Amino acid sequence: MNTIGTIYRLTSFGESHGPAIGGIIDGCPAGIKLDINAIQAELQRRRPGQSHLTTSRNEADQVELLSGTMPVTTDSVVTTGTPIAFIVRNADHRSADYDALRDIFRPSHADFTYWTKYGLRDHRGGGRSSARETISRVVAGAIARQCLRPQGIDIRAWTQQVGDIACDADWTHLNLDNIENNAVRCPDDDVARRMEELIMSVRADGDTIGGIVSGVITGCPIGLGEPVFDKLHARLAAAMMSINAAKGFDYGMGFAGCTRRGSEMNDPLPFTTNHSGGIQGGISNGQPIYFRVAFKPVPTILRPQQTIDIEGRAVEYTPHGRHDPCVLPRAVPIVEAMAAMTILDALLLNQARPPQP
Amino acid sequence: MNTIGTIYRLTSFGESHGPAIGGIIDGCPAGIKLDINAIQAELQRRRPGQSHLTTSRNEADQVELLSGTMPVTTDSVVTTGTPIAFIVRNADHRSADYDALRDIFRPSHADFTYWTKYGLRDHRGGGRSSARETISRVVAGAIARQCLRPQGIDIRAWTQQVGDIACDADWTHLNLDNIENNAVRCPDDDVARRMEELIMSVRADGDTIGGIVSGVITGCPIGLGEPVFDKLHARLAAAMMSINAAKGFDYGMGFAGCTRRGSEMNDPLPFTTNHSGGIQGGISNGQPIYFRVAFKPVPTILRPQQTIDIEGRAVEYTPHGRHDPCVLPRAVPIVEAMAAMTILDALLLNQARPPQP
Amino acid sequence: MNTIGTIYRLTSFGESHGPAIGGIIDGCPAGIKLDINAIQAELQRRRPGQSHLTTSRNEADQVELLSGTMPVTTDSVVTTGTPIAFIVRNADHRSADYDALRDIFRPSHADFTYWTKYGLRDHRGGGRSSARETISRVVAGAIARQCLRPQGIDIRAWTQQVGDIACDADWTHLNLDNIENNAVRCPDDDVARRMEELIMSVRADGDTIGGIVSGVITGCPIGLGEPVFDKLHARLAAAMMSINAAKGFDYGMGFAGCTRRGSEMNDPLPFTTNHSGGIQGGISNGQPIYFRVAFKPVPTILRPQQTIDIEGRAVEYTPHGRHDPCVLPRAVPIVEAMAAMTILDALLLNQARPPQP
Amino acid sequence: MNTIGTIYRLTSFGESHGPAIGGIIDGCPAGIKLDINAIQAELQRRRPGQSHLTTSRNEADQVELLSGTMPVTTDSVVTTGTPIAFIVRNADHRSADYDALRDIFRPSHADFTYWTKYGLRDHRGGGRSSARETISRVVAGAIARQCLRPQGIDIRAWTQQVGDIACDADWTHLNLDNIENNAVRCPDDDVARRMEELIMSVRADGDTIGGIVSGVITGCPIGLGEPVFDKLHARLAAAMMSINAAKGFDYGMGFAGCTRRGSEMNDPLPFTTNHSGGIQGGISNGQPIYFRVAFKPVPTILRPQQTIDIEGRAVEYTPHGRHDPCVLPRAVPIVEAMAAMTILDALLLNQARPPQP
Repeated sequence: MNTIGTIYRLTSFGESHGPAIGGIIDGCPAGIKLDINAIQAELQRRRPGQSHLTTSRNEADQVELLSGTMPVTTDSVVTTGTPIAFIVRNADHRSADYDALRDIFRPSHADFTYWTKYGLRDHRGGGRSSARETISRVVAGAIARQCLRPQGIDIRAWTQQVGDIACDADWTHLNLDNIENNAVRCPDDDVARRMEELIMSVRADGDTIGGIVSGVITGCPIGLGEPVFDKLHARLAAAMMSINAAKGFDYGMGFAGCTRRGSEMNDPLPFTTNHSGGIQGGISNGQPIYFRVAFKPVPTILRPQQTIDIEGRAVEYTPHGRHDPCVLPRAVPIVEAMAAMTILDALLLNQARPPQP
Repeated sequence: MNTIGTIYRLTSFGESHGPAIGGIIDGCPAGIKLDINAIQAELQRRRPGQSHLTTSRNEADQVELLSGTMPVTTDSVVTTGTPIAFIVRNADHRSADYDALRDIFRPSHADFTYWTKYGLRDHRGGGRSSARETISRVVAGAIARQCLRPQGIDIRAWTQQVGDIACDADWTHLNLDNIENNAVRCPDDDVARRMEELIMSVRADGDTIGGIVSGVITGCPIGLGEPVFDKLHARLAAAMMSINAAKGFDYGMGFAGCTRRGSEMNDPLPFTTNHSGGIQGGISNGQPIYFRVAFKPVPTILRPQQTIDIEGRAVEYTPHGRHDPCVLPRAVPIVEAMAAMTILDALLLNQARPPQP
Repeated sequence: MNTIGTIYRLTSFGESHGPAIGGIIDGCPAGIKLDINAIQAELQRRRPGQSHLTTSRNEADQVELLSGTMPVTTDSVVTTGTPIAFIVRNADHRSADYDALRDIFRPSHADFTYWTKYGLRDHRGGGRSSARETISRVVAGAIARQCLRPQGIDIRAWTQQVGDIACDADWTHLNLDNIENNAVRCPDDDVARRMEELIMSVRADGDTIGGIVSGVITGCPIGLGEPVFDKLHARLAAAMMSINAAKGFDYGMGFAGCTRRGSEMNDPLPFTTNHSGGIQGGISNGQPIYFRVAFKPVPTILRPQQTIDIEGRAVEYTPHGRHDPCVLPRAVPIVEAMAAMTILDALLLNQARPPQP
Repeated sequence: MNTIGTIYRLTSFGESHGPAIGGIIDGCPAGIKLDINAIQAELQRRRPGQSHLTTSRNEADQVELLSGTMPVTTDSVVTTGTPIAFIVRNADHRSADYDALRDIFRPSHADFTYWTKYGLRDHRGGGRSSARETISRVVAGAIARQCLRPQGIDIRAWTQQVGDIACDADWTHLNLDNIENNAVRCPDDDVARRMEELIMSVRADGDTIGGIVSGVITGCPIGLGEPVFDKLHARLAAAMMSINAAKGFDYGMGFAGCTRRGSEMNDPLPFTTNHSGGIQGGISNGQPIYFRVAFKPVPTILRPQQTIDIEGRAVEYTPHGRHDPCVLPRAVPIVEAMAAMTILDALLLNQARPPQP
């Protein structure tokens, strides 16, 4: 469904070529002063056309708040505890670009599955399955982040890997303040440069490429996460895997830890190592929470492909339109947004029943 | 919280050394004929003491159904559409083994986080954080499986990797009927033998080892999964990551797909490849759904470790008691159970609103 | 919270004097052809300024659909199975009318409780607690009604009582086609005329008056409602009691049945009486479902009243502004909307798990 | 479904003639010291056979806690924050009494609707629709009550009316400490005596009689209840209407307030009257919350009635077995239990997001 969260809950709406994308945030605490520019700044990080590495679709992606706040200054509002609705109008939708797709299923897109599930589909720009839906996540995440910051909780994500080009260093050895200094959002400038070259080369081939976004949450208090099915990392996994093109998630030592022995992996108390990745028994232990999200290459490649139409007839399909050769740079703020929402929700839920003395 | 699912919902209860483990299954369709022995057989696959590779704790793990069914034969019942409650009594709990742990936090267990979150904890055998909690999952999964089978949906999981010993072949090249033929639950007998040797060697060292369980769901109809936050793989991820000791999840080409190009990864229609792993846009596409779950080495190692007590004082701790050197063999039926519950829930949810003609 | 329903779910937003009122409908089946004019017609029935009996606030209350549909004709769209977002812009808000209320709690309004709960409040027109919030219910109800009509399910509500003036006849003896023929929405023209006189007289006194809305749902299939906590009438009760100013709910013989004996109240099978009100054991039995909702007099009376300000100081307060002397006429479409949403949700939920043969 | 609550959540199970009735309470705060005898005492108030006014079915209704607590003394335990599972074994079920009902639908029972909804039913003693299900509510309510009492929140219910015999006085003029002093649970001994006479007379006729339970919640803090769909009274209404045989709910001046004017009904601040019934805008205002629940006469009357069998054939049916002539006395502790759960859940939910300074 289109709602995520238990207390801090985002319900999202919108299609790529409909009038607007937006959502309703329910459960945001009252009395939080929100910097509108900071919300807009997160949308700029997600926005198409932000660099030479992204699609040229041109959208201002200006957010409008419709409820749930009272004005404080021209740039800030205060939350009232009621639902915060917001919309971002779609502007540059060239729906005619998609006329040819009305009856064709693009390979490895959601066209075939949506059409079969619902009996019809909005074919324009992928409709609901478009990555434009993530606008609503970025807005809700930017607001969550502003709720978390006064508590000292910070969230950072970056492009860890593109194709075979990886930033091998452990996150503690990376300069996370450097993330925004290059178009690919990799904290290591040298690796970033090689990633960019790879992306440009892939694009020149009319192809696309996958990669990995890494993230770290610092300052998280002990006690977040609800056993047993809502373990903090289970919630993080669900949040991250709900992002378009996500194919995998791990945290702490993750898949790499499978080859290790308990004697190598255990974290002594007081903590001097953090192989656990900041979560034990599904509950945050006060150490940094670090995780990875794997993204597949976007399926829109500028090459002829075999597919079928809605009558089941074989057709050849060659995409046109504007697309990203690699989603990683724009996925970074989305990963951060999902992490912020997940942590805030866990924090509010944990407040519901404090331990009795 | 302790409930998973939207329509087919398991609410789980129980501590390792309390009177019983069990749960309530709400939302099971009426009129399903259940084979009681088949439920019990799944519990046997999860049971401690089942082989030389597992803990020697001796539990019969006999399930008792308390509601939601009417008897048909001595071995079978029919569901009535009302909640199915079940319990498994704990028998062989040597709580005295844990007296030394009353005030000590075992490293990389949930002791410290539970104690901080709740202000107290049941220290006996890990209490609620014990893997005995998974009994309730296995029962609910075994019932889900019996609901799915008449629809032709089958679920298989196996030990794909233990430490560095991996079963490299693609699942389509494995003989999945061989899984139960060895104690480690690996379909390749030769690899299984080497895994067993590794586990025995690790145990001899007083150590533990991690690994990967792989799974595949076949016969799944097109259309399961609910955009956007409840994508089928997001639900699977949350379900798998809620299992004790799980550290990572991926599906389809997963993390390995990050290094690939779109031209290598797209699946043409009609499907001749399945890089997507049976899900596109969060909705099943009728192809097999395959996935991996990473498990860390269990933290109970028979070696002295540094930790603290509840007063924050440094203490050295050397575990005793009965533990698994490797959770993988017993994790296999749990992974299958979580998959069965997730698929059945998605299937029932999908039935709620069929496409209008 | 601001979401209602399990499958067909409305999440509502908006304040009386904010930019807009609206909502997101999640879970609407795909392929439903919606008549836009029929939605707008329901809003007209709720609209202020529709008759001499209502507030003179002038709002066009024009609904804009933002997602979840594809155009069919100029007047109709088809649902796509994705969330249907909609907004109604607020136009005629004279916020300055409310400046005097910034620091004052109006008696028997939500001012004091919102302020205490949230630490601040939007004082303009009651903010979130304003009956303008019900716009979102009317839109979602109008869409639900269009989903239900092809199945032969019809919902009618009317003003049963205003003050002491009651329409005593059993609903089966009323001409429900006459409801919209008078401003008070009472099917008996003679009673309606007396109700109008009472309302006009009460208004002349600067006072307000309460009453009862009755409703009936016909054509409902057998089997809707989920034991035990989501009995169909428990859901209806929650839905109705969530309407502003609602103070009571009963169904079937309701409160009047308390004085009766079982021998008078039992309905024989096949049904020749319907004392049960169409629901038995929380599940619809195929007979008409009839119910009542009690509404208090609106608290805004044009007379001086004792109250306190946010510093706790006693002040005298005399309301100005535009208000209804009686909410009943405008409550009728809201009651119908809540009934439509509740029944559709129960119907979709019931489809999730059909009985096995 | 069979779960109620958002934070403090009861999932209930069990049939009248199955092995046991019980439930799982999730979300109970940790560190609450529970008096086991106080829980059992509430079950005694609900127990059949407790007086000459009730069914003679003989059940000890001894509760067994299976999880979620640690022992403190022989009579008390402390909650650990994990799910509290409990069961009550069914003992005195004379299922043979019900053999005649296997194929017959009892009038105004849930037999016909369950059978149609699920395609089969447990005919023994009403199966899931039996009032024995309320055992789980009484246990969960008794625990909720022990969580609320340290905060000064008290809940009292009583029999307000049986047939035409009513206790007309306002609750503030009743001696609520007298409720348990008579079998009918009416605080006015004289009215109670007349109620008992009526019940005995009705029973002698082989008939049954309905009535009204009133309740009051005192000491409730300001701020409980969540706008807009989870208004505190909407939650109370849903909770009460989910009780077997409930047909109506109102609070504050309720249905009686419909005939009043705003000038009579408004409560000035600081509060000197309480026509609102302790809730304004769906949020508790610190004043006592009072409400009424209407119960129909139980449908089992010892007289021949017309009905049909599962083949649709007309049959005459005359009930045997043991039944209550009036549910009111035993409904009192159930109403209290539902109120306690509702208030505790609202209180915990309200703690999740305290207003920011």
